Amino acid sequence: VSVWNFSAGPAVFPKPVLERIAFELPDWHGTGQSVLELSHRSPAFEAIIADAEAALRRLLGVSDDYAVLFLQGGATLQFAAVPLNLAATKAAYVDSGAWAQKAIKEAQRYLDVDVVWSGRNDDYRRLPRPEEIEVLAGRGYLHLTSNETIGGVQLRDFPKHDLLVADMSSDILSRPLDVGSFGVIYAGAQKNLGPAGLTVVIVRKDLLRHAAVTTPSAIDYTQQAANGSLLNTPPTFAIYAAGLVFAWLEELGGLEEIALRNEEKAAFLYTAIDASDFYHSPIAPADRSLMNAPFRAPEALEPLFLQEASQAGLLELKGHRSVGGMRASLYNAMPLAGVQALVAFMGDFEGRNG
Amino acid sequence: VSVWNFSAGPAVFPKPVLERIAFELPDWHGTGQSVLELSHRSPAFEAIIADAEAALRRLLGVSDDYAVLFLQGGATLQFAAVPLNLAATKAAYVDSGAWAQKAIKEAQRYLDVDVVWSGRNDDYRRLPRPEEIEVLAGRGYLHLTSNETIGGVQLRDFPKHDLLVADMSSDILSRPLDVGSFGVIYAGAQKNLGPAGLTVVIVRKDLLRHAAVTTPSAIDYTQQAANGSLLNTPPTFAIYAAGLVFAWLEELGGLEEIALRNEEKAAFLYTAIDASDFYHSPIAPADRSLMNAPFRAPEALEPLFLQEASQAGLLELKGHRSVGGMRASLYNAMPLAGVQALVAFMGDFEGRNG
Repeated sequence: VSVWNFSAGPAVFPKPVLERIAFELPDWHGTGQSVLELSHRSPAFEAIIADAEAALRRLLGVSDDYAVLFLQGGATLQFAAVPLNLAATKAAYVDSGAWAQKAIKEAQRYLDVDVVWSGRNDDYRRLPRPEEIEVLAGRGYLHLTSNETIGGVQLRDFPKHDLLVADMSSDILSRPLDVGSFGVIYAGAQKNLGPAGLTVVIVRKDLLRHAAVTTPSAIDYTQQAANGSLLNTPPTFAIYAAGLVFAWLEELGGLEEIALRNEEKAAFLYTAIDASDFYHSPIAPADRSLMNAPFRAPEALEPLFLQEASQAGLLELKGHRSVGGMRASLYNAMPLAGVQALVAFMGDFEGRNG
Repeated sequence: VSVWNFSAGPAVFPKPVLERIAFELPDWHGTGQSVLELSHRSPAFEAIIADAEAALRRLLGVSDDYAVLFLQGGATLQFAAVPLNLAATKAAYVDSGAWAQKAIKEAQRYLDVDVVWSGRNDDYRRLPRPEEIEVLAGRGYLHLTSNETIGGVQLRDFPKHDLLVADMSSDILSRPLDVGSFGVIYAGAQKNLGPAGLTVVIVRKDLLRHAAVTTPSAIDYTQQAANGSLLNTPPTFAIYAAGLVFAWLEELGGLEEIALRNEEKAAFLYTAIDASDFYHSPIAPADRSLMNAPFRAPEALEPLFLQEASQAGLLELKGHRSVGGMRASLYNAMPLAGVQALVAFMGDFEGRNG
């Protein structure tokens, strides 16, 4: 079956990575063991995790001022881990949509949250310019969600702040990034990094050693950094698979190259949407996500669109239940050919129903 | 390369499960998608997690009075999750060895721990009989570690208590279990359940709705139970692989049958150790673990033993650095043939060096 998978995550994998995993699964590099069977204390796995970390550092240009951690629990667990590790009593959050709101709600278990900007009055269809965000001195860290998977908005320019914290789950590794302007970056793996079940945290080392005493050790950045993410058994297979994704990305040309491809894919889809009177994007053009493109057709026709698209092998195009409509996720591993197939189907559907 | 992997975890997998994963990896059940690419909200994955939970319930005989959760973070995160979810102010812990001590140390971040029995004076070479454990009324839950992976001791009989909590990471599914006598059972997957990165929690439903407000949502039993473990993106691949392990175990005859095999394997090894003047087991016979068998040879010869064993394809036999010596882990997926190969090598080594 040949399909295109537009899922918001877990999402499409690079085909060469899937083939390599399947090939290597019974016997990792002639060891006679599957990668699933490797002890996390074995030299073999130590090489896997060291190589994965080194590749991620090269891709993002992460300096030695930062620790790179491979943890578990997804962004949802980081929503708690950030306030616990930074042990702040107050913090500023940008309310850019559904994921920012989850981060805010969780942070409120631990500290006073000051919502310094909200898209609520604009129905979350736009994002703040950097100068719209005003954080008073002494308000603690500033938390951003770089890309809203459900809303389909993506920050182009980040505000300046002494201690910037960002959930980059759904657009990390999709474009070059100035890691040095952030204090903490965290990301669930299941969009651009690898399998669900792995969480990457990049934390400036001067922020370590401040964790609240009630921080569970497994999500304590300081303890995990001191143990090379091996304080407890890490998600070994997910780290292995992420390492293969990083290698694939490096071979392809790194973040400059993938950013060009991501821009090309998104432009192809948004141009088709904007050129049509049948489809439309609800999002302000300047803030549209290159990763997740929500779009609408005449509402009565949307169920038919989704049904026929699925029959044509264009999968997981249903918008999140909270917003309805359609959504095409265009992560790194989605080739331009997939977007072309979608746009061709959209034209065909419009021709028959428009 | 043909090898036997005696790793304490991540550990040996059933061969048929590895073959099935490799075969299915590029295309899960004709969907055109890899299991790594399936949305956790897709009907395909909903079937995977429902089947895995149903099989685990059948294997262990888990009644509807219990929720079965598929979480992340390993036992180490549960060391915090248990006191947070039960929101107790005090609790009783049995100090049976290295893992119990980790549980105790972490619990002390959240409540007063009463160590009601300790193996310290016996160098952790034995375990308490049920009647040796005395918990005063009003001391909260009683926490046990059913099997100490490092020390090599395993509880045969569990004490009775109103609220029994057990870390069963390293012997769950190795034998029949009366789940109904426990309040909470938790286990990291990487020994008998599946890949590292999955944590199973079995919690009696009347214990829900008590979590401390500072419990991170991702490890909040109540929120995860209400969402069928899908409050946030679960470790989808690990759940899929665990489901295959459960199916393998059911096909083989379930826990009665695997318990017989585990007893046979362990007896084969311990009998050889006891019959020899060259090797010895430091553990009291009644408390020896069927899962992890530490043993010693004349200390000066141990490095040579480990080196030659490894060359003979008998891998990961080095004891934990905290205790030294050798350790053979004999989880469900280790066939008797592996233990026979080990015992044959031991005899050969003794013949050449004894």
